[in-house]
Amino acid sequence: PVQAQTSVALYGVIDLGIAYAKGSRSNAVQVLPGGLHTPRLGFRATEGLGNGMSASLVLEAGYDPDDGMGKATNTNNQRTGNTVPGGLTFNRRATLSLSGPWGEVRAGRDYVPQYMNFAIGDPHGLVGFGIAMPRRGLITGPAAIRASNSVSYHTPRSLGGFGINAMHYRGENPGGTPTSDDGNGAGIRLSYEQGPFIGGIATGRTNYAAGDSIQRNIAAAWDFGTFRVMAFMNSDRAGTLSARGGVAGVQVPVGSGQFRFAYSYHRTDAPGNPEGRKLALGYVYNLSKQTALYTTVARISNSGGAAHALVDDTTGANESTSGIVIGMRKHF
Amino acid sequence: PVQAQTSVALYGVIDLGIAYAKGSRSNAVQVLPGGLHTPRLGFRATEGLGNGMSASLVLEAGYDPDDGMGKATNTNNQRTGNTVPGGLTFNRRATLSLSGPWGEVRAGRDYVPQYMNFAIGDPHGLVGFGIAMPRRGLITGPAAIRASNSVSYHTPRSLGGFGINAMHYRGENPGGTPTSDDGNGAGIRLSYEQGPFIGGIATGRTNYAAGDSIQRNIAAAWDFGTFRVMAFMNSDRAGTLSARGGVAGVQVPVGSGQFRFAYSYHRTDAPGNPEGRKLALGYVYNLSKQTALYTTVARISNSGGAAHALVDDTTGANESTSGIVIGMRKHF
Amino acid sequence: PVQAQTSVALYGVIDLGIAYAKGSRSNAVQVLPGGLHTPRLGFRATEGLGNGMSASLVLEAGYDPDDGMGKATNTNNQRTGNTVPGGLTFNRRATLSLSGPWGEVRAGRDYVPQYMNFAIGDPHGLVGFGIAMPRRGLITGPAAIRASNSVSYHTPRSLGGFGINAMHYRGENPGGTPTSDDGNGAGIRLSYEQGPFIGGIATGRTNYAAGDSIQRNIAAAWDFGTFRVMAFMNSDRAGTLSARGGVAGVQVPVGSGQFRFAYSYHRTDAPGNPEGRKLALGYVYNLSKQTALYTTVARISNSGGAAHALVDDTTGANESTSGIVIGMRKHF
Repeated sequence: PVQAQTSVALYGVIDLGIAYAKGSRSNAVQVLPGGLHTPRLGFRATEGLGNGMSASLVLEAGYDPDDGMGKATNTNNQRTGNTVPGGLTFNRRATLSLSGPWGEVRAGRDYVPQYMNFAIGDPHGLVGFGIAMPRRGLITGPAAIRASNSVSYHTPRSLGGFGINAMHYRGENPGGTPTSDDGNGAGIRLSYEQGPFIGGIATGRTNYAAGDSIQRNIAAAWDFGTFRVMAFMNSDRAGTLSARGGVAGVQVPVGSGQFRFAYSYHRTDAPGNPEGRKLALGYVYNLSKQTALYTTVARISNSGGAAHALVDDTTGANESTSGIVIGMRKHF
Repeated sequence: PVQAQTSVALYGVIDLGIAYAKGSRSNAVQVLPGGLHTPRLGFRATEGLGNGMSASLVLEAGYDPDDGMGKATNTNNQRTGNTVPGGLTFNRRATLSLSGPWGEVRAGRDYVPQYMNFAIGDPHGLVGFGIAMPRRGLITGPAAIRASNSVSYHTPRSLGGFGINAMHYRGENPGGTPTSDDGNGAGIRLSYEQGPFIGGIATGRTNYAAGDSIQRNIAAAWDFGTFRVMAFMNSDRAGTLSARGGVAGVQVPVGSGQFRFAYSYHRTDAPGNPEGRKLALGYVYNLSKQTALYTTVARISNSGGAAHALVDDTTGANESTSGIVIGMRKHF
Repeated sequence: PVQAQTSVALYGVIDLGIAYAKGSRSNAVQVLPGGLHTPRLGFRATEGLGNGMSASLVLEAGYDPDDGMGKATNTNNQRTGNTVPGGLTFNRRATLSLSGPWGEVRAGRDYVPQYMNFAIGDPHGLVGFGIAMPRRGLITGPAAIRASNSVSYHTPRSLGGFGINAMHYRGENPGGTPTSDDGNGAGIRLSYEQGPFIGGIATGRTNYAAGDSIQRNIAAAWDFGTFRVMAFMNSDRAGTLSARGGVAGVQVPVGSGQFRFAYSYHRTDAPGNPEGRKLALGYVYNLSKQTALYTTVARISNSGGAAHALVDDTTGANESTSGIVIGMRKHF
């Protein structure tokens, strides 16, 4: 236990803000969690095994710091597998890895490869009022971001900047029924990182008897020093419904702070071609390496019957929502 | 992660006793959690930011050590927001603070100011068989003790013993409905602490379409060295139902131990004016700074149709309940 | 908090494998948690109190690393007390102990004495594809393995190898009803450990209005150095239904690894005398003290209408299931 105690790292994020939004159910002041980074509490450990090999684990739980609630997880990559919300689960990540010169084999619950490009392309880090519309509007269900019952492979970091991340995941349904493959899926991502450039392409598919879910995307970012340009395109499909979205923006460091600006959209081919568009401007001021104050202003416009609002809210069809959040984030 | 590991403190309380009660459904031996301190497991960290400023966080989960269950939280300060019991949540506290010479701004889930006086006035620390009747009988609902979606302010400790704690909290309902303000509320507490004296007055209100909940109370304690006198009066109201209660008692240190005696009552203006009265005598023996053995004997008498029993039980109308608990508490 | 921080040990197990089984609903590849050790995350602390006395606590939560879900607990040793699955609970153990030269008094949720012999007798450690049939087929309900609301006594380790563990646990139902004693129970185990030998006998009973649950068992293991022989017999009864089972096997260390072989069976006196029999062969290769790779192959045969399959699955009546799992386990 004593050795174990020293080798397990406890880490996390807490992030709370005061938000005001108009034009949606958020047409009120609220205390908003996760405006800059998604709150989490995690445990991780790495053990060297010799010969360049190591074993490592990550257990990471999401929670809402405004009310103390834990986030639910999903057991089978299908809507039926959503656990009852309330208690803490390792919904964000529960993985065991064996790594060596040949790369890393990882099992458990983790991000799907097809989601990893999102992080490259969104100046607002996929959270809060600034979250990019392709992420906000994802139509591909429980395995769009993370999958349970997965095994994945990551190439080592020594391939001249190239990387491959491939994953297979299982719905683990009873056999011999029309839905026995539901929740099974796979994804693959190719990435390249060299000096100021990082980019990736990815594709993934999850089986559903009601129609497969498919994601395809491409993202890139170039750091010019005085500013960083970021862009991202995603197409997703759930059965016969298709969607398309993108984001483009910049991050501009200024002293201890950083400005963030992004335009993003998401459109489906449902009747009327509902589309949401977002402009988001943010500023982050770092009080220390661990702690920052931030503010984000954003506006979503809808057309074709879309009803997107800020965060997870919805508004009236074709209405707009705008809002501002001021908050503080702390790593620990 | 390494720095984070050293800066996050893990702490908690475990407390279990053997209890016997007669005259209620507890008319049996049971293994009772939290007879002296409420069990909890918490994570906290403070980071100095320079210029007398600091950022800090507390994440604190309640649990039952007799069965390992986590305590539920409440997401909206309304009964509809009670989470399903079972898994661990940060129901006791989830806060992020920014502190400076000007005081502390805190956000998240926390005690409401109007509850803080309870701790001054109850010789039995608001828990177990000794818990004061005004606390036992609280009628003001989910925000009577803690509130989610809160922002609060605490004055610095340098105001000549005076302190102010003010909080505002939000129900975060959809707008434009008759219940859109339900769960919104505010509280304020004024306190004074000088030498052997500590006292406070507080008031708070939570909006409900069915009728607002209101608490008002005053508490004081004076430490005479050989004993400590404590007293507390509370009035609460939920819609048209009003209640009134109080506690008075002493704590008497004797060697490594402490005797505790309290009389308390709680009466509502429901038909018949149901009232519960409690006498509670306890003894705490400290085995170390962290660990104590304790025993408490208590008796509740009911009149006017009241059916209060020990802990969270009820008994028959106008019946009495008496009981004894012997237990052990350990801080960690 | 600082002292507390250093005295609380964080520990755990993560274990994931890839499993293939045929002849049951597991007739598919799945990512299987806990093939070698049951995953857990725990907190423990011990404090010396002088005079050979100490206070200690253990809080241990089970979880599924394939999907991040926490394991449910049980609050009253009855089926009605199962909590909703999803969030983390201290389902595996939540105990507070006071120890001295006279032994240990422990309260909370813990293994029942009548289960402790299982660990002596099963070469496959009571988990995964190799789990012994008497454990797999337990018919005695929620208190068969652990009990909540318990108080137990353990003799000190200085009795010439002899040991006694006795426990009483409470269902904590309302009094004065026909089911007021449901979930109350007790167990006792006598054990002897000397040099290469370890053995134990145990019995336990839990009250249920529908008919008491009873367990009786005996287990022994002898370590001959080049191999270890292990055996176990258990009889359990739930109301009018009786069952009987046993396991016999060996563990054979080979270099950094260990082979494990076991035959086990479980039969009830339900109409047809349903019986399941299992052959299980495993190999564990230790990469370090904390980390191991393992594989287990197992086959279950059913007769008399039994439908046992690997892990918690069922198959068709009298059908067989066989499977293989390859995995990795890490202590932390």
